[in-house]
This record gives sequence, C-alpha cells and structure tokens, in this order.
Amino acid sequence: MGKGIGEGNEALICTPVMGRIGDEVLEELDVVLAKGPDVVEWRADFYANIGVTDDVLALAASFKRRAPETTMIFTIRSAHEGGEPIPLDARQAIELTAAVCCGTAFEYVDCELSNAAADVAYLREAARASGTKIIGSYHNFDRTPEAGFLLEKLHEAEVKGLDVAKVAVMPRGLDDVLTLLKVTLEARQRCRIPVVTMSMGGLGALTRMVGGLFGSALTFAVGKASSAPGQVPIEDLRELLRIVEKYR
Amino acid sequence: MGKGIGEGNEALICTPVMGRIGDEVLEELDVVLAKGPDVVEWRADFYANIGVTDDVLALAASFKRRAPETTMIFTIRSAHEGGEPIPLDARQAIELTAAVCCGTAFEYVDCELSNAAADVAYLREAARASGTKIIGSYHNFDRTPEAGFLLEKLHEAEVKGLDVAKVAVMPRGLDDVLTLLKVTLEARQRCRIPVVTMSMGGLGALTRMVGGLFGSALTFAVGKASSAPGQVPIEDLRELLRIVEKYR
Repeated sequence: MGKGIGEGNEALICTPVMGRIGDEVLEELDVVLAKGPDVVEWRADFYANIGVTDDVLALAASFKRRAPETTMIFTIRSAHEGGEPIPLDARQAIELTAAVCCGTAFEYVDCELSNAAADVAYLREAARASGTKIIGSYHNFDRTPEAGFLLEKLHEAEVKGLDVAKVAVMPRGLDDVLTLLKVTLEARQRCRIPVVTMSMGGLGALTRMVGGLFGSALTFAVGKASSAPGQVPIEDLRELLRIVEKYR
Repeated sequence: MGKGIGEGNEALICTPVMGRIGDEVLEELDVVLAKGPDVVEWRADFYANIGVTDDVLALAASFKRRAPETTMIFTIRSAHEGGEPIPLDARQAIELTAAVCCGTAFEYVDCELSNAAADVAYLREAARASGTKIIGSYHNFDRTPEAGFLLEKLHEAEVKGLDVAKVAVMPRGLDDVLTLLKVTLEARQRCRIPVVTMSMGGLGALTRMVGGLFGSALTFAVGKASSAPGQVPIEDLRELLRIVEKYR
C-alpha cells in the first residue's frame, strides 16, 4: 500500500506508464520504478489489449506484484480529453475501471468529470466496495478557462463524492499560469478533498515545480516518456523540489 | 565591464556584500566572487566608514580591481526601507552616491524612489555624466501593496528617467506572492526599462527562483550573508535556475 494523495505536506511525484503491449508496459514500469516515483499512473488507453478485461486485470496484477509499496493509478484517458483512441465506449471504459477497482490492488482510478452521472455513480459504488479511491478529472488541452469555472470543476469532484479533484489545462500566456496557481490556492482552502492541478506545456512547466506550494497534492514527471506537454524528467523535478522545499 | 541588467533573457544573479570594516568587506567580496555571481551589490550602509567619502571611493576601487568583469551595484539602503542606520542624511547619501558614479567604475547605483525629486535629479545628472545607471527602488518590509500601486512605483522609476525599476515587498500570504508575479508580468509589457521584483521572506522565496520567467531581470542570492529575508544561497539558486531555464 503506497502513500495517499494529499496525505503529506509535499506534492507526490507521479510518473506515467504508457506502453502498448504487455512486455513493453512492464519493461517501461521497471525503468520508471528504478527512478523511485511516489506514484505510478498506468495510462491504459495506450494498451493494445484494453478491450480484453482479463488481460488488463492480469497486467494490473503484475504492476502491483512488482511494486506493492508504490501507489498506483489506473487511468483510461478519453480521446476527447487528450487520450488515445480505444475500442471501448464511455460506459465500457467505466465498467473496465470498475473491474480494476474490484480485481486489483490499485489504490486509485481516474474518472473524467465529463462522464454521465449514472456512470460516475456506478463506478463510485464499485470503488467504495473495494476501498479504491477515485480521481475526478478535467482536462483542457486548448486553453485555460476562467478561475470560476476551474473552481467549479474541482468542487464538482467533491460534490460527486469522489476522493481527489484534478484539473489540467493549457495556458496561452503566463497570466493563465498565475490563474491556475490562484485557483489551486483557493481550492485548497475551499475543498475538503485533495486537489491536483497543473498548467501544461512549456509555459506551465513551473506549475509542475511549485504547484505543491500552492496546494497541489501531485505532480506528474517523465520516467520513460511524457504523457502530457510540459512534464519534466523525474530526476530534474526531484532535485528542484528538494531545493524548493528547503526554503518553503 | 560586467553584464547589463535586463540585457539577456534570463535573470542575473546578484549577491550582496555587507561587511562593516574595510578588510572584512574585501574578505566577504572574495568569498562571494568565488561563487561566480553575475552582479555584486555593495550594501554600503553596513560600512562603518561610510561618512568618509575617500574611504568609500578607495574601497569601491578595490571592488572593481578585484573583479572588473563583474557588474557592481553601489547601494545605501536607508533605515526606513530596511537598511542600517548611517551618519549621513538623505542629501548626503545622494551626494556620496553621486561621488561613486563619478569616481569609480561601478556600473549601477541604487536610488530609492522616496528620495526628494531634486535629489533624484541631482544624482541623475551625475550618473549621466559618468555613464552610470540608476536603479530606482521601492521596498516594503511590512506588506504587499495592491497591484496598481506597485505598477505605479515601477512606472515612476521610468518617468524619473532612471534605468532600472525595482520593487521588493513582503507577502502576508501566497496570494500576495501571485500579485507580485502578476505585477512583474504586466510591468514587463508596459515598462521600457528593465524591472527587478521580489516577494520577500519564506513565502516569497519562490519569486527569487521563478521571477525571471515573469520578467524580473535580477534575483538576489546569498553569497556569505543574507541582506533580506527569503534569499536563497547562490549554489542552490543557480542549480534551481539551471533546471527551470531548461524547461522554459
């Protein structure tokens, strides 16, 4: 059982795994684990056999066997929020995610807030029964919506009974980056669940570095490959956070 | 002749020197220079013989002899803006600063914006005649005034014909830190002269790290001793900026 998101004072470092076939996925996992992230996110939308539930569950079991102490997130990022196209529809993706809750020791699963309310409720019941936590997420790869909208999105995850609220948005200028940090600061004061925020791309990279100071509980770093623009290699991020935290 | 403030894309690193007697000052300078700052600020308000113009000029000449390639700032920080008490009144301090312009190779001198308009004009003439540049500065060790006030202060330096505009303020929360960064971003777009900004104390330390991304042309770091709260040792700051700049 790994560290819980939002439990400590400092942001946890999460590294994505995005291989396409089973052997590749586990090789990538080994590379990533050698770098000691707090959390690993399996981006299962990259996995070629995502349509075969037993293959997904077996691979997820291998993840946990290799690193029982590392917190794991199971994520199917939908194509319209920046993920890979998959042969499952939204309901099937939710059902697969629910199967991961019940059939694996993954601590977290991701659920986009844009899912149908009934699907979110279905997943929530499966997650409650198995003790899995849900990250309610919102992504915008085009722009940074205004602060009020972003605060609402974070609040929505709480209202829907989810366990972590996540917002990842694209800045068009550094003022958008400051908006994201301000939203993070306000959300930390208003929300009862941990929040995870980031501004993507090169402009937003600094939010991956100092977001923790403003209340973001998790930051994504590159282990082997980047899953979103602006992610910094874990070695550099860890060195940077070591310095930032010293003067916190 | 050292690098000019605001000439490059990245913030220069400035390290203060604050010794009390001549030998101490030069020893401290040697320690600081060994760490390779881009800029050295001599905080002459700490110097015991500040009342003896010839001593000040001789010591300033030693600074430049030791490091002709390092940009130097001569600063008498007034007691009401966070400096040490000195036996000179405001006019005498301006006259001494003017003597440094004419009698040394220091590239910059500091002039608080709160000085009388006639004194600022007098110093500006001396500086123009000698090719020295003036940093017009505003400090608030108590709080962070609102954005509009800070923008006006930065603009005031430009209006008064000075060469660099500097604002250093104390945050009471992280929202003040974001205000300072937002002001920096706006000032960079509005001002024709380089701006130097910082949020002080532990909360504001991150502005010393990422302020350059928002347009601050200079960041202060500790060489031997800290001249203001929140300054980070130069070794840590340089390592951090190396990483930040990589992903800019």
